Amino acid sequence: MKITDRKSEIIVTAAKLFKKRGYNAVSMRDIAQELGIKAASLYNHIKSKQEILSDIVLNVAESFTNHMEQIYPQSINSIQKLEAIIQNHIDITVQKTDFLACMNNDWMHLDEENLATYLKLRNAYEASFRKILQEGIAKNELENQNSEIVIFSILTTLRALYLWYSKKSSVEVEVLKKDLPKTLLHGIVKN
Amino acid sequence: MKITDRKSEIIVTAAKLFKKRGYNAVSMRDIAQELGIKAASLYNHIKSKQEILSDIVLNVAESFTNHMEQIYPQSINSIQKLEAIIQNHIDITVQKTDFLACMNNDWMHLDEENLATYLKLRNAYEASFRKILQEGIAKNELENQNSEIVIFSILTTLRALYLWYSKKSSVEVEVLKKDLPKTLLHGIVKN
Repeated sequence: MKITDRKSEIIVTAAKLFKKRGYNAVSMRDIAQELGIKAASLYNHIKSKQEILSDIVLNVAESFTNHMEQIYPQSINSIQKLEAIIQNHIDITVQKTDFLACMNNDWMHLDEENLATYLKLRNAYEASFRKILQEGIAKNELENQNSEIVIFSILTTLRALYLWYSKKSSVEVEVLKKDLPKTLLHGIVKN
Repeated sequence: MKITDRKSEIIVTAAKLFKKRGYNAVSMRDIAQELGIKAASLYNHIKSKQEILSDIVLNVAESFTNHMEQIYPQSINSIQKLEAIIQNHIDITVQKTDFLACMNNDWMHLDEENLATYLKLRNAYEASFRKILQEGIAKNELENQNSEIVIFSILTTLRALYLWYSKKSSVEVEVLKKDLPKTLLHGIVKN
């Protein structure tokens, strides 16, 4: 139990440093220094910097996957599913900002095996997103717009949210949770 | 006339290299080599790598500014203005992909004076965009959603378009020009 706590403390500290300087520019020594411990004692809890990176990236990626797997099969309409997905992106952005930044900036530094796992999760996520759009179009709930354009537009905004949110703390989370889904799903033009 | 042609050839070639490898990783020697000329003769046409960068970045930034200055005062409604702005982003993305990539990736490497010019143009552009949104809300043409969220969402998508467009050549420009403005302005939900 003690070890698990220490490990999660190491990971949280590393995520902050990776976010600030990028994975490549941070050493195990830097992480130890930030924690006020010796570099050698880091290795009691963690095998390598790569292990920290994969823990961070796969933790966030699995948060997205788990939510998608929970929402996708529900008997609610496509609009409600997309709404839930957008709310989940906002929640993860607010709650795991450093982890998310690290995933977005440093996933390409994962080793071969973890990279394959990450890409599999990301592709599966996009495939479910695409299916929800296509089902929504088939059921006449959504406009028949090019799915690739819609996926690009919505996911680009959601993936960049952590960058904007870090700078624009003047916008309250409640406003974001109310207005971002409206903007993405219903647009900005009055009917 | 000959010098101008040569200069524009140098700039186009440099933009391609900057896009591929980033401004910092490209030398004047690399640009000369790509053009099949001696590095020394580059300097007959151009003072420095910084001059090339500022020519590229300010060229694109001014394309956006000129279009905004032409559209903003017109007596058309806010939706038509936003539609025209989105179409212009698509046109510049398609016509000046390398220049746009260079602006997005390397503007921070401009020297102090050019950086100030660029940031002034970018801030003025965003301010006009914000005013169009606010006028549209005041005239009841647009939904009263938080303007900062809307600006973030639309400009993030438009600014990332060149990345996506380079990879997704399967989507025709005509489809993009039809469906992207719809997605951004009217959303994807059927009324």
